[in-house]
Amino acid sequence: MSKTKKTTIVLFSGDYDKAMAAYIIANGAAAYDHEVTIFHTFWGLNALRKAESMEVKKGFMEKLFGKMMPRGVDKMGLSKMNFAGFGPKMIKKVMKKHNAMSLPNLMEMAQEQDVKLVACTMTMDLLGLQKEELLDDIEYAGVAAYLGDAEDGNVNLFI
Amino acid sequence: MSKTKKTTIVLFSGDYDKAMAAYIIANGAAAYDHEVTIFHTFWGLNALRKAESMEVKKGFMEKLFGKMMPRGVDKMGLSKMNFAGFGPKMIKKVMKKHNAMSLPNLMEMAQEQDVKLVACTMTMDLLGLQKEELLDDIEYAGVAAYLGDAEDGNVNLFI
Amino acid sequence: MSKTKKTTIVLFSGDYDKAMAAYIIANGAAAYDHEVTIFHTFWGLNALRKAESMEVKKGFMEKLFGKMMPRGVDKMGLSKMNFAGFGPKMIKKVMKKHNAMSLPNLMEMAQEQDVKLVACTMTMDLLGLQKEELLDDIEYAGVAAYLGDAEDGNVNLFI
Repeated sequence: MSKTKKTTIVLFSGDYDKAMAAYIIANGAAAYDHEVTIFHTFWGLNALRKAESMEVKKGFMEKLFGKMMPRGVDKMGLSKMNFAGFGPKMIKKVMKKHNAMSLPNLMEMAQEQDVKLVACTMTMDLLGLQKEELLDDIEYAGVAAYLGDAEDGNVNLFI
Repeated sequence: MSKTKKTTIVLFSGDYDKAMAAYIIANGAAAYDHEVTIFHTFWGLNALRKAESMEVKKGFMEKLFGKMMPRGVDKMGLSKMNFAGFGPKMIKKVMKKHNAMSLPNLMEMAQEQDVKLVACTMTMDLLGLQKEELLDDIEYAGVAAYLGDAEDGNVNLFI
Repeated sequence: MSKTKKTTIVLFSGDYDKAMAAYIIANGAAAYDHEVTIFHTFWGLNALRKAESMEVKKGFMEKLFGKMMPRGVDKMGLSKMNFAGFGPKMIKKVMKKHNAMSLPNLMEMAQEQDVKLVACTMTMDLLGLQKEELLDDIEYAGVAAYLGDAEDGNVNLFI
């Protein structure tokens, strides 16, 4: 009797390329029948933001953070060679040329494969992000839930 | 008979937000009775620096490094949206507002929970850091000791 | 009967200091008889580039990427305190002073210890890198092969 394998990824980074790496590994692991969780925390939460601005009540600082941070993966920059937004455009063009899946597609695929997408509630508070601003069908949890998953994980990564 | 679970974190980064993530996970794991080690290497060593300047003998380059690197977590910047030091101020304000623990408090809590704080001796040499400059009650070790802990670890992260 | 332990490292970063950390851990693990794999993806592929420019046919964007990215570890910058290339020079000087192994030496040692160096074929495509441009005696694989190694890994890190 073999046990289901588990992969957990903490997505801390808000960079397009790192989020791509996280979702490629997650989709790969799900294809191998792993139970997969991506725990989005700090800047990684931005990957879960809806593209449109939502009407939510916020304090001044939370509004400021909200404005400065990218709304969703398509607004995110690269960890290297970002060149004020030119880098991501290049990468996306090359990906299209090579028929590679875009990050929004990788995220859809992850949801179809039942990868558990979790938003870290503690850092949502810190950055002033509210549930209305994040994608539907995700889960909300804290570090305890993450550790519960990770302590039985076969592959645990911090990205 | 259940074995004690183990969490090991390599803290390579010298960013305030990444160090926060490391110490939040470490404290969480310790609360779940994991044996926890944070192995501070490269820029992560700066988290262990005392705030005050210490009288130690150093070569020219080591002095230069010492001056340019932050003395302790309160001087560290953010990995994103640092804005020449304004970002960390904002984050600290929001943390206070939400009654979140500051990084120095998280570090104290970790020590009270017997999280093993280790300074990597090899990179201390490289960056010219001496024991007198680092916090008391920490341990000193190299990559071999890290691997000894990590190879039995349930959760191993590189931050 | 004890099983061979396994360490797998995803080297995503193209920074000199992070690549050093990856290769130091890899060499340490190999010395402890772990089976070790470093899976180079995205900017980490640059660590595997040959120093000289190779004659290969490329599209315009691939040429541009090729020109902008460092050819091999000796051209890579630091993740912190890079100072337009002055930081790496300082680090290399200090390493020499302390008789620490340089990154090219660490890579040679890894190959002598049979650390498996893998280049991620999918991101090679994206960045327009061809086999002729990368070091000899490395392997080529995708995320599936990485996961096959990692799911039995004792120490799995994303750097």
